[in-house]
Amino acid sequence: MKRIYSVLVENRSGVLSRIAGLFSRRGFNIESLAVGVTETDDLSRMTIVTDDETDSPERTFEQIRKQLSKMIDTVRVKALSPIECISRELVLMKLRGDAERIAAVCEKTGARVIEETAETITIEIIAADVNVIIKAFEEFEIVETVRTGVISLQKGSSTLM
Amino acid sequence: MKRIYSVLVENRSGVLSRIAGLFSRRGFNIESLAVGVTETDDLSRMTIVTDDETDSPERTFEQIRKQLSKMIDTVRVKALSPIECISRELVLMKLRGDAERIAAVCEKTGARVIEETAETITIEIIAADVNVIIKAFEEFEIVETVRTGVISLQKGSSTLM
Repeated sequence: MKRIYSVLVENRSGVLSRIAGLFSRRGFNIESLAVGVTETDDLSRMTIVTDDETDSPERTFEQIRKQLSKMIDTVRVKALSPIECISRELVLMKLRGDAERIAAVCEKTGARVIEETAETITIEIIAADVNVIIKAFEEFEIVETVRTGVISLQKGSSTLM
Repeated sequence: MKRIYSVLVENRSGVLSRIAGLFSRRGFNIESLAVGVTETDDLSRMTIVTDDETDSPERTFEQIRKQLSKMIDTVRVKALSPIECISRELVLMKLRGDAERIAAVCEKTGARVIEETAETITIEIIAADVNVIIKAFEEFEIVETVRTGVISLQKGSSTLM
């Protein structure tokens, strides 16, 4: 069961290490993690996605939420299910293949060519679930992929703060 | 001076904590960090951006590269300057303001409305430098922002692997 933790933290040295340590010490697996500055300079927001395949995901979920809340760096934690969120992930992919054919798959999937050289073509993909779109490019040679991990905001006018 | 570290790591428990710990123990400040899976299931790629404002950024840069290379989780490290890379960051922003006016600023900046409710409008921004575009929306009430941190690929057909 996937869960999204949106954690607002003090932007100070060691905070990332402490939070990542909390997950690893307890054996909770992080599927993706993104950290960026916020509208307030001294705060960062981490978006952490976990996928718990144990028999008691709700229990784990609540344990993590509590542990995160207790940390001195933490200003606020929201634990959300994917259905409550607008989520997006960004992917850059370097491909080798027929340029026209790649352009056609971009057109179909909403991906976009951002660099074209004689040898390779680099595209960007932005979507709630990028895996489906990445699959569509598997007919080409995928030279390299880099992904941001998922970020999320709550749907509607609710806020994470 | 900004530096981008693209680090390919074994996708195992604790790796994020160890890498973040390396930076914090040495007092190196992480500006942004993104972790995502790669084309190979058991490897993750981290993109770490640092901004060193000391007198000897080249020295720090080389120190970090060496330390990262030595870690058992590390498969490969590339340390790059922004000029060698195609970089992108993704931002989600929830705004309050006149819908037509927000649509006009989106049109001008290449941002995109992804949710519109009676109270708020959520947009997505994708750019090499998102700060300029975020600034263009400061005339509205920014309810909330979430950012992925920067991800990068080398320009042309070179690879990070």
